[in-house]
Amino acid sequence: MGKRKQTLVFQNKPYILSAYSLGGEKEGAGPMREWFDDCLRDDTYNESTWEKSESKMLKTARLDAMRRSGKSKEEIGAILSGDLLNQLMSSSFMARDMHIPFLGMYGACSTMTESLMLGSVLVDGGYSDNIVIGASSHYCTAERQFRMPLEHGNQRPPSAQWTATAAGAMLIASEGNEETSETDGCGNVREWKKIRVDCGTIGKVIDAGIKDANQMGSAMAPAAVDTILNHLQDTGRSIDYYDIILSGDLGFIGKDITVDLLTDAGLDANALSEIYDDCGTMIYEPQQDVHSGGSGCGCSASTFAGFVYKKMRRGEINRALIMSTGALLSTISPFQGESIPGIAHAISLETE
Amino acid sequence: MGKRKQTLVFQNKPYILSAYSLGGEKEGAGPMREWFDDCLRDDTYNESTWEKSESKMLKTARLDAMRRSGKSKEEIGAILSGDLLNQLMSSSFMARDMHIPFLGMYGACSTMTESLMLGSVLVDGGYSDNIVIGASSHYCTAERQFRMPLEHGNQRPPSAQWTATAAGAMLIASEGNEETSETDGCGNVREWKKIRVDCGTIGKVIDAGIKDANQMGSAMAPAAVDTILNHLQDTGRSIDYYDIILSGDLGFIGKDITVDLLTDAGLDANALSEIYDDCGTMIYEPQQDVHSGGSGCGCSASTFAGFVYKKMRRGEINRALIMSTGALLSTISPFQGESIPGIAHAISLETE
Repeated sequence: MGKRKQTLVFQNKPYILSAYSLGGEKEGAGPMREWFDDCLRDDTYNESTWEKSESKMLKTARLDAMRRSGKSKEEIGAILSGDLLNQLMSSSFMARDMHIPFLGMYGACSTMTESLMLGSVLVDGGYSDNIVIGASSHYCTAERQFRMPLEHGNQRPPSAQWTATAAGAMLIASEGNEETSETDGCGNVREWKKIRVDCGTIGKVIDAGIKDANQMGSAMAPAAVDTILNHLQDTGRSIDYYDIILSGDLGFIGKDITVDLLTDAGLDANALSEIYDDCGTMIYEPQQDVHSGGSGCGCSASTFAGFVYKKMRRGEINRALIMSTGALLSTISPFQGESIPGIAHAISLETE
Repeated sequence: MGKRKQTLVFQNKPYILSAYSLGGEKEGAGPMREWFDDCLRDDTYNESTWEKSESKMLKTARLDAMRRSGKSKEEIGAILSGDLLNQLMSSSFMARDMHIPFLGMYGACSTMTESLMLGSVLVDGGYSDNIVIGASSHYCTAERQFRMPLEHGNQRPPSAQWTATAAGAMLIASEGNEETSETDGCGNVREWKKIRVDCGTIGKVIDAGIKDANQMGSAMAPAAVDTILNHLQDTGRSIDYYDIILSGDLGFIGKDITVDLLTDAGLDANALSEIYDDCGTMIYEPQQDVHSGGSGCGCSASTFAGFVYKKMRRGEINRALIMSTGALLSTISPFQGESIPGIAHAISLETE
């Protein structure tokens, strides 16, 4: 038999009917500010714990994606969701008031494209319809859980990434958007493209032996490279098939490693430098002091649901490969001397 | 539009080609001993940490399910897996040596049927084939993470359940088993039935307001009841359509509540007492001092992959509704005054 294919092909190419992208205070002061649908003025979001703040962000993203799609709660087939908190606390607590069938996903920061993949399968195969997918992260919940109490004020090494306070959600449906253009108050007409999910590549868990939890980018880069190469091989495409290839949250170090490894594998370095970027390097300004860039499920979730979704709706991007990347470490595993396994799932989107 | 359906119908009814069920020491001394494929003689499983022991159990279950199916690693489309540990540590570390596409699931103790549902969708829809699904739990990892250090020797209230040290895995394929009978050394012929996945009902997150982490059964029962009732309504079936309905790990208290609520909802109490049971009440003997029964992802995973799988292969059960149930609490949420959301996903299996 031939080589295993990691890529699932969607025959009916389901539509991304709507999306919602929500950033925190720091994210709202960064380069993505114009692409978020809204930003918090206060990262507590008027809640008494950071966990409740994050869960509320995830809920806002879901409900607003649903509202924008014009679908009622009763029309939603299922919610697929994940986050970084132990036992998916943000997702579970978001879902308990929704009364909508719920499937919990965990791929660390790869959760956005994991849920987009499985949500697209459910719609494409006719098993369900109007699936709301998404993911979130919050700097303060991640610090509490994975690192040091905020009050401790510990120093971060230059390789560390900053967990984004952000959430993103999308609604996947078998029927595309009805409106194809919009006229603004000045009489200018803006054409809207429809966005379809073309195919998706499931990643393998790859462990490069990195044991430093402040070197997430290095830990995830080999998995990102493996998924991109398998995607290109499975589909017979070269990278310039895409207008943009965006990895999850490898950050500056991980992005550099990825470019090096992809170039080593024979991909064209010039094409890569034009087409490939990483959400972790895009979400903050250099002067925002985040060291190696952004991370967290919400980093790629909000960039894909904001920047990518809107650019594609406008027709400024027509073919995108989006790939969230995850570092599958726990708070216990580094103490037990374990290295950090990485994973990345890629989704090909196209306009029509 | 009509009421939302929570049930996914599998047109091609994928096969469960093989399964493997592994129990711990205590589980091997219980009523399920004859249905496990193997039991540990030592719960450390020759590993230096409990987390590595659990991960190794999960790996054994996967590899042996694969071996029994006759499929090579290269033929496996994907692994879907989950466990109770923070960031799915058992599953992630199991997967890193496998080099097989991986999707992480989290539904607390509902993970076995969640992965069976999504694995069946991937095979049924022709997106992939030979999907290995499964879940695990380990008493010592769960106690360390959720409760007290083992050395503390704290007393457990009568409503507490005992996290099963167990793992279960199944391989889902588009083609059924080739062998249909087996002749033993004495010349006796045993007929084997094939097992097919008929449909699956995605559960909703339901929070009954229970705040006591030693009352898991009460917290999960309303979600179990909601899923059963929606399954029956979606399919137009009555409970006596099934030879057996098995819930995940509600334990004695949760099972009693479930029976009461289902009877209140109009289901026949006599039929229920004949058809319905709970894995949490089946996995230990009363004298094994587990109070309200078993729990953990591994409880229903090993019971479904052992007891249910083998009884169906033998034709002693022909229609089964299996439903793992999950309590979506974290170690932080009870301290923040949160109640415990529950969830349950149901899968209908049939023989041919």
